[in-house]
Amino acid sequence: MRVTVIGLGLIGGSFALSLRAKGLATRLIGVEANPLHAAKALELGLVDSVLPLTEAVEGADLIAIAVPVDVIPQLAVKILNRVTENQIVIDMGSTKGELCEIISQHPARHRFVATHPMWGTEFSGPQAATADSFAGRNVVICQKELSDTLAVEKVESIYRALGMDVLEMDAEQHDLHAAYVSHISHITSFILSTTVLEKEREEEAIFNLAGGGFDSTARLAKSSAETWIPIFKQNKYNVLDVLREYIHQLNLFRKALEKDDYKALEQTIARANEIKRVLHK
Amino acid sequence: MRVTVIGLGLIGGSFALSLRAKGLATRLIGVEANPLHAAKALELGLVDSVLPLTEAVEGADLIAIAVPVDVIPQLAVKILNRVTENQIVIDMGSTKGELCEIISQHPARHRFVATHPMWGTEFSGPQAATADSFAGRNVVICQKELSDTLAVEKVESIYRALGMDVLEMDAEQHDLHAAYVSHISHITSFILSTTVLEKEREEEAIFNLAGGGFDSTARLAKSSAETWIPIFKQNKYNVLDVLREYIHQLNLFRKALEKDDYKALEQTIARANEIKRVLHK
Repeated sequence: MRVTVIGLGLIGGSFALSLRAKGLATRLIGVEANPLHAAKALELGLVDSVLPLTEAVEGADLIAIAVPVDVIPQLAVKILNRVTENQIVIDMGSTKGELCEIISQHPARHRFVATHPMWGTEFSGPQAATADSFAGRNVVICQKELSDTLAVEKVESIYRALGMDVLEMDAEQHDLHAAYVSHISHITSFILSTTVLEKEREEEAIFNLAGGGFDSTARLAKSSAETWIPIFKQNKYNVLDVLREYIHQLNLFRKALEKDDYKALEQTIARANEIKRVLHK
Repeated sequence: MRVTVIGLGLIGGSFALSLRAKGLATRLIGVEANPLHAAKALELGLVDSVLPLTEAVEGADLIAIAVPVDVIPQLAVKILNRVTENQIVIDMGSTKGELCEIISQHPARHRFVATHPMWGTEFSGPQAATADSFAGRNVVICQKELSDTLAVEKVESIYRALGMDVLEMDAEQHDLHAAYVSHISHITSFILSTTVLEKEREEEAIFNLAGGGFDSTARLAKSSAETWIPIFKQNKYNVLDVLREYIHQLNLFRKALEKDDYKALEQTIARANEIKRVLHK
């Protein structure tokens, strides 16, 4: 299988490495706007060569789009404008509503499979890519019914070969759920980081005491603005909805603590503890 | 060394196991108010026997208090009331101001060493204890100057033998820093969990998509109210101070997103990213 990966950062780079590790790609071509990233990706062996978009798309069996979500819809259209009936295009973005709307009426829509592998780290760029990233994770496929059946089967078999479980979801549902369980987590981490850096003048103390819980809750604060601002923008209404509820509940907690209402805090923590039912690791 | 551990939960149990693993304790006695925990601790071999407080203190070389912070000060006084010049008492609590004030004028104050090992997990009870928990972590010792020099040296050598680095800190400074880098992280996790459980009716979606960041930011939401409410209570003013700033910064983020002010979000994320300087793992 000849694979073209567009965007050789954390996700695209990891996808390329994983395909290579599993022997799924006979040839890997990259497309990368940032020349430093392109050079690094070649040096690290993520892809065999880096080519301009048009050449890279031509002759590829699978074209995977792994760029920030603000760029995906237009890029998807450009690629669909040139694909043949033998080619499959996927994206790996964290939002799905906008993309699925933009490509919905495209005559080659059936060659596209909209996917979201549920994996990421706080790091970015080709040097952050790893070969075993996707194993054991879920991948969401949206609007399966608009894609060619054989194309979906092929994409599912690739993700399964990488060790992933495939889930199906409506694009709108995906964006709603993603706001709850991924996008809000990044905001809480970013703001935890700015708050602590603002209030805590002694950075050495942060470093020395971070084992007390800060390290895991602030980990995502290292994530890149380039990736996340387009996500917040595209998923604005869902994100704002969760964010408002989060601020509301924080204010209730604050007021309870101000009033020494420890009974209320106890009830809140008891409710929070119920996450054990869901996250049972 | 004969060691008595009071409170056989996550911290006390892990301390007991670690001492045993390093061959530092010839005899380990436990004190545990919860009979189920006492039975479990014996079954797991955390201690050799469980005794009432008075008997357990008598003849111990080291007495370690590892109970919730609301119980520590009075218990510390009761134990100091009976210690000899050959015994050392330590606590392992997450707040230090209240404790240090309560014992400050006690005639046996010099037998006490106030410590806070910077380690914990979201789990609790004797079954959560592990033998290698403390290795590679820091331990803070407060008000060293009020403790007997040899007692401090002994306690430091024990923590070092467990693989820890020893830091010194004023009790007030400790509580301030702990609010920033540990206590607030637990609040943000508790509230993230309640918010998502409140908004997200499909728990299966939380479970399936948690790889997108939620799992690490909500991990601490499993922590016990019994441990954390006394900490928030004792460190109320520091915790409220950080919490108010956190809510303020979240509101700025929300307003910027509402107004499509992506420049402001970019600046916020750039500031948040600076945490890389501090947390460079």
